[in-house]
Amino acid sequence: MHRYALKIEYNGAPYHGWQRQVDLPSVQGMIEQAIGKVAGSAHEIAAAGRTDAGVHAWAQVAHVDMERDWDTFRLSEAINYHLKPNPIAIIGCAKVTEAFHARFSAVERRYIFRMVSRRAPIVHEAGLVWQVKPPLSLEAMQEGAKHLLGYHDFTTFRSSICQGLTPFKTLDRLDVSEHPYPGGAEFRFDVRARSFLHNQVRSFVGTLERVGAGHLEPSDVKRRLEACARSACGPVSAPHGLYLAGVGYEDDPFE
Amino acid sequence: MHRYALKIEYNGAPYHGWQRQVDLPSVQGMIEQAIGKVAGSAHEIAAAGRTDAGVHAWAQVAHVDMERDWDTFRLSEAINYHLKPNPIAIIGCAKVTEAFHARFSAVERRYIFRMVSRRAPIVHEAGLVWQVKPPLSLEAMQEGAKHLLGYHDFTTFRSSICQGLTPFKTLDRLDVSEHPYPGGAEFRFDVRARSFLHNQVRSFVGTLERVGAGHLEPSDVKRRLEACARSACGPVSAPHGLYLAGVGYEDDPFE
Repeated sequence: MHRYALKIEYNGAPYHGWQRQVDLPSVQGMIEQAIGKVAGSAHEIAAAGRTDAGVHAWAQVAHVDMERDWDTFRLSEAINYHLKPNPIAIIGCAKVTEAFHARFSAVERRYIFRMVSRRAPIVHEAGLVWQVKPPLSLEAMQEGAKHLLGYHDFTTFRSSICQGLTPFKTLDRLDVSEHPYPGGAEFRFDVRARSFLHNQVRSFVGTLERVGAGHLEPSDVKRRLEACARSACGPVSAPHGLYLAGVGYEDDPFE
Repeated sequence: MHRYALKIEYNGAPYHGWQRQVDLPSVQGMIEQAIGKVAGSAHEIAAAGRTDAGVHAWAQVAHVDMERDWDTFRLSEAINYHLKPNPIAIIGCAKVTEAFHARFSAVERRYIFRMVSRRAPIVHEAGLVWQVKPPLSLEAMQEGAKHLLGYHDFTTFRSSICQGLTPFKTLDRLDVSEHPYPGGAEFRFDVRARSFLHNQVRSFVGTLERVGAGHLEPSDVKRRLEACARSACGPVSAPHGLYLAGVGYEDDPFE
């Protein structure tokens, strides 16, 4: 058997999330179907992050075991051919050893959330950013975000259906930055951790947006985190602003 | 009467170009329809650039005369309300005098063409960039572009149905730059002139892509320009990579 790591880009809109489901379209299901056509038999793949319905990816990572010794360029071209017309593309392919596991070898997940504040409806990036109303204070969101960094019980920012064994996680980064956007402003949240709870990033963003809008104080983020209660969370942001932007490995197969 | 300048963003995909046409959807037609609903009667608008079918805009400029003295913010909100669900948005609105004419006062049109070279299909920006195959030489395209700068007879790079009175134009800028793009590279063409011939930018880009791919030498651009014959033009690029990115006025109403 030969193992290949795949770097995958997708638009999450048409899918019920990454994970394969009976009778519902999923990103995993579409890729497995395409690999099945390439290989002539069913193949399962494992991914670093099981993104929710509507969440996009710039660089999801998965691995697959193939009987045939493929040239990596030809393998990604063949899978892409069979993925058409799905908005899913293999943008990287690398040979790895059996020691590599897309999910269990991952030491960092990186998410980017794109939030645009402007009055006019979004035209070119409809479905690719979460639109909110101006004005928003960058400084307030940055100050609020600081309270979330480090090792905490994140029960407040965890979906009630989260299946994680523990609500304790270490958040390594939550940078909020502002960028020019026609007729408004874009706020990007760069969020990194070894692993995340279900809905954690969208819960962070939804609460921080309330801080930016002035409905919450930055210090309220600390109080809400310490409440360790889901009811203390602000609104959860829409999925279509969220991107799985990268996965970190001790030994990056794509470098 | 009160005159207003409008800054307009649109996705050109669903429309048969800017210009109003009987029985065919156009950007102008949609905006005039929305203004008609706001004002209660038919209004005509004039625009700086009559973009082709499928061409997008980041900042088209048009003007409209209204009977009522509108607050500019309320006027743009009202038009945007009636534009839904069209991918068209008013992103700026300014009061101007009757001396201002969106088309005749314009001293510069600025176009950006987005070309992405990568093997994998385009996912997130499908319809927003023109995809070509790698590899492309940035240097060759830059060298070829230089031959087009300045005052020339642009017959070679002008659609055979162009209605311009003369093929002579002055090209002020044609910068080609390279930007990172996942799984490939993006090449941006920043093109500026007082005015353009029909299909001029797309003819430039199509020919320069052939230069980048090595099928033409940079010096061939000069020879083809000097041929002053439409048949000397390379392939015309697809419209969906092209954006009307800005319009220059001596006295910018939006500043």
